[in-house]
Amino acid sequence: MKKIAVVVQELTEAQRETIRAAAEGHGFEIRFFDTAEEDPAYLKEAEVLFGHLPQITGDAPKLKWICTPYAGVDQFLAKDAFANRSALLTNSSGAYGVTIAEHTVMMLLDILRRQPDYRRIVNAREWKRDLTVRSIKGSRITLLGTGDIGQETAVRLRAFAPANLIGVNRSGRNPGGFDRILTAADWETVLPDTDVLIISLPGTKEAFHMLGRKQLALLPDGAVIINVGRGSVIDQEALLGELRSGRLYAGLDVFEKEPLGKDDPVWETPNLLITPHTAGNMTLKHTVEKIAEQFLEDFGNYCEGKPLKHLVDRTRGY
Amino acid sequence: MKKIAVVVQELTEAQRETIRAAAEGHGFEIRFFDTAEEDPAYLKEAEVLFGHLPQITGDAPKLKWICTPYAGVDQFLAKDAFANRSALLTNSSGAYGVTIAEHTVMMLLDILRRQPDYRRIVNAREWKRDLTVRSIKGSRITLLGTGDIGQETAVRLRAFAPANLIGVNRSGRNPGGFDRILTAADWETVLPDTDVLIISLPGTKEAFHMLGRKQLALLPDGAVIINVGRGSVIDQEALLGELRSGRLYAGLDVFEKEPLGKDDPVWETPNLLITPHTAGNMTLKHTVEKIAEQFLEDFGNYCEGKPLKHLVDRTRGY
Repeated sequence: MKKIAVVVQELTEAQRETIRAAAEGHGFEIRFFDTAEEDPAYLKEAEVLFGHLPQITGDAPKLKWICTPYAGVDQFLAKDAFANRSALLTNSSGAYGVTIAEHTVMMLLDILRRQPDYRRIVNAREWKRDLTVRSIKGSRITLLGTGDIGQETAVRLRAFAPANLIGVNRSGRNPGGFDRILTAADWETVLPDTDVLIISLPGTKEAFHMLGRKQLALLPDGAVIINVGRGSVIDQEALLGELRSGRLYAGLDVFEKEPLGKDDPVWETPNLLITPHTAGNMTLKHTVEKIAEQFLEDFGNYCEGKPLKHLVDRTRGY
Repeated sequence: MKKIAVVVQELTEAQRETIRAAAEGHGFEIRFFDTAEEDPAYLKEAEVLFGHLPQITGDAPKLKWICTPYAGVDQFLAKDAFANRSALLTNSSGAYGVTIAEHTVMMLLDILRRQPDYRRIVNAREWKRDLTVRSIKGSRITLLGTGDIGQETAVRLRAFAPANLIGVNRSGRNPGGFDRILTAADWETVLPDTDVLIISLPGTKEAFHMLGRKQLALLPDGAVIINVGRGSVIDQEALLGELRSGRLYAGLDVFEKEPLGKDDPVWETPNLLITPHTAGNMTLKHTVEKIAEQFLEDFGNYCEGKPLKHLVDRTRGY
């Protein structure tokens, strides 16, 4: 009997029942795991995996399709990542736009309104209220990445009346919501006119250190960088230099090396707001609902032999 | 010569020059002060005051018009507040909507996304990321107060796709942007269906303890209250009880007694995010621009004998 394995702890009972019914309706045996260690033998035998299981795919010859509940697929891109080289990979990009957009707006407002400083003031029980703050209104905002996350972020930021919202992507196409789209060929020209730079790019080779020393230097004094994509997109050492000098501000949810170790100097960098990769985790109910919904949609496609909607191009990496 | 005095430290040089030109163009002598103490004699002689000067108005018999750069006018409402009882009072309501709306969305996101808890985690250099968070998307939001602040807040919140935005005001009229408007007669009926309650009401007698023990008890478990209006609108002791029991969450920028003293138990209340009355201060450039602009508009009206646009009804208190 064809086997399907689900290793997504966050699913509710109701979601599990819906998935079970769909699987059994299509003649699959299904099992839910809390961790991949519970029954490695079953996992190796599975035709379909729903879970983030890079440690399994290289050792599962019968695997035809894996759907990761995450958006990032960095760990599936190695040459030997799949024992069955023609196995399909889908991700759950599209489920994280809402939660990451809310996180991004939150970090941006926290930084513009000096909340890291005000927290210290409030913790010291001081009633000080005269720090100069800034506004999203009138800010010139550039978004590296115009997918689900970039679009959901742009919709929200628009309501705050920024001066403009400029998107950067590969195709040069405007998915809607941006005043203008730039591509890799010309995106750096906008940096001197960027007050806020928001990064939601995946961790591809192409995007590696896209924001390096040279690009950082083009940003005007006081510019704010928010990274909710992947840490590898920024030359972290160069950024830390700009933060230490006091010239730029940043809100980082992702880092070159995660988790940050206890001794990592990143922790005490000035002008830096840190969140521990929480922008797009599965702690928001809406996110898990969407992940389950997208999996079920593609499970239907899979069983009917139709193309998968959330397919990842393993050579491009997203 | 008719005298005008300006005591608004935050004005830029350019703004001062514009105001000086307008004043002199209308035959006024004008002086700018950093503090009211610099020349009390001049202030007492002034026909027009632009500044927050409750300590002066009771002692300035020639005063015909005072414009406060603040929105709140609580201190001008006492019976003996004006030596010239027919003096006009205008406020700068309308200048604070943008900054207070941004502050409100920030506090709400900080609370829903557990930032007070995450700050402690990050300060301890821990990489913990599994706290359950909540979203504005799908939240049922009620706004007490639908003036400039309520409207600017509603516009921004709408972009986050809440389940609804319900306004509460005196007139029952929808200024636009709200799904429904309730009045004092029926507003309490919405409390059991309110996930987020945002208060931007002025400190009037009518609004005193509008949110008391009984109203708080009607809110569902986990509801979030944001107060950026006046502390007197909430029965603070009753609210602190609900926060200490862990049933409700609050973000407070205003308090019954300000500033909070070093020993005030408010500082260490759980489930409470404190900002020291910074939502609507004059530390945002846009706010000061708008205040100057509104004053100049009404200065033109005043000189031409037209009605003042930002006039406060001293019996209603706003």
